[in-house]
Amino acid sequence: MCNNGLLLIFSGPSGAGKGTVLKELLNKNHNMKLSVSATTRQPREGECHGVHYFFMTNEEFEEQIVNDKMLEYAQYCGKYYGTPSVPIMNWISDGLDVVLEIEVQGARQIKEKLPECVSVFVLPPSLEELEKRLRARNTEDEETIQKRLTIAQKEMETAKDYDYVIVNDTVAHTIEQINQIIAAEKLKVCCRESVKERML
Amino acid sequence: MCNNGLLLIFSGPSGAGKGTVLKELLNKNHNMKLSVSATTRQPREGECHGVHYFFMTNEEFEEQIVNDKMLEYAQYCGKYYGTPSVPIMNWISDGLDVVLEIEVQGARQIKEKLPECVSVFVLPPSLEELEKRLRARNTEDEETIQKRLTIAQKEMETAKDYDYVIVNDTVAHTIEQINQIIAAEKLKVCCRESVKERML
Repeated sequence: MCNNGLLLIFSGPSGAGKGTVLKELLNKNHNMKLSVSATTRQPREGECHGVHYFFMTNEEFEEQIVNDKMLEYAQYCGKYYGTPSVPIMNWISDGLDVVLEIEVQGARQIKEKLPECVSVFVLPPSLEELEKRLRARNTEDEETIQKRLTIAQKEMETAKDYDYVIVNDTVAHTIEQINQIIAAEKLKVCCRESVKERML
Repeated sequence: MCNNGLLLIFSGPSGAGKGTVLKELLNKNHNMKLSVSATTRQPREGECHGVHYFFMTNEEFEEQIVNDKMLEYAQYCGKYYGTPSVPIMNWISDGLDVVLEIEVQGARQIKEKLPECVSVFVLPPSLEELEKRLRARNTEDEETIQKRLTIAQKEMETAKDYDYVIVNDTVAHTIEQINQIIAAEKLKVCCRESVKERML
């Protein structure tokens, strides 16, 4: 376990700012990879296999499920979406930290399969701020915004199932806190077995 | 729980450098207190009640045991030594982090009583380095040094019962790592309940 990387899973309501934070985090940490999801939906223009998604046929996807090679999966509108375990496990064995952005049900499935993964819930500073951020996007009508706010409140109640909770006040502060979590996790006894073995 | 401080317990073999590290840590963290032990032995010259020890009579000490106000205790040479819980709990409630240096049996007793305490095992970089440090003290004869090294090896096997293990290579690096552990622990969900409550 010792020189392995960490699997870090991030959840949080739409508008909490996860996307911006994770992009910056990946830019600054060269030892870190972003997990790529798999899907059976058709690629859209500009989407590349292995970058935006692993595009699979139904048969391929279901074979991965049967062989327990999906850390989690779900169906939306008749299409499969999931997290293939093989690339993640390979990166972790190579000592790379892997970042995964995922909604709460998927996070729960992964935590059950891999309890050693580190789960982080990202909160906006307040519900008012969340509403402001959703409106600032200027892409959604009032009904969608209200729906997102209701979902956000529900999701925020699940924060207690995560290992850590971060309030995303500023991107720099949030990244600092994520780096502190990573550093501390790597000092945990389960990750340090071989330090002791080396000495004795 | 949220605005409470942390109880940090530190163990590690004699010569690992805990003393120097904790002194520096306390100097730099004004939000941090060093736990004071209680004892029934006589004060030595220059020792102050409440600073070096809480000096107690046998009756006072045993009353604290009976009233479950000792986080841990032991007897050496017919004298009691222990960790009174009241000052620690008061500091923690005031939001101060409390540091406790303790041997492995005492640490085990405290972890059983207060599972939320954060336990850190401090290792020397190697057994050779440990031997070098013990010799550099120039205060112990060969037999004592050999005895200390044997005890150190035994103690190091208990490192697995701690939450974190730090290799004390340099004081600055060790303090940085302790501060990362403290920061991460304060982002744990159990400590962040009220953030969520405040928002919902």
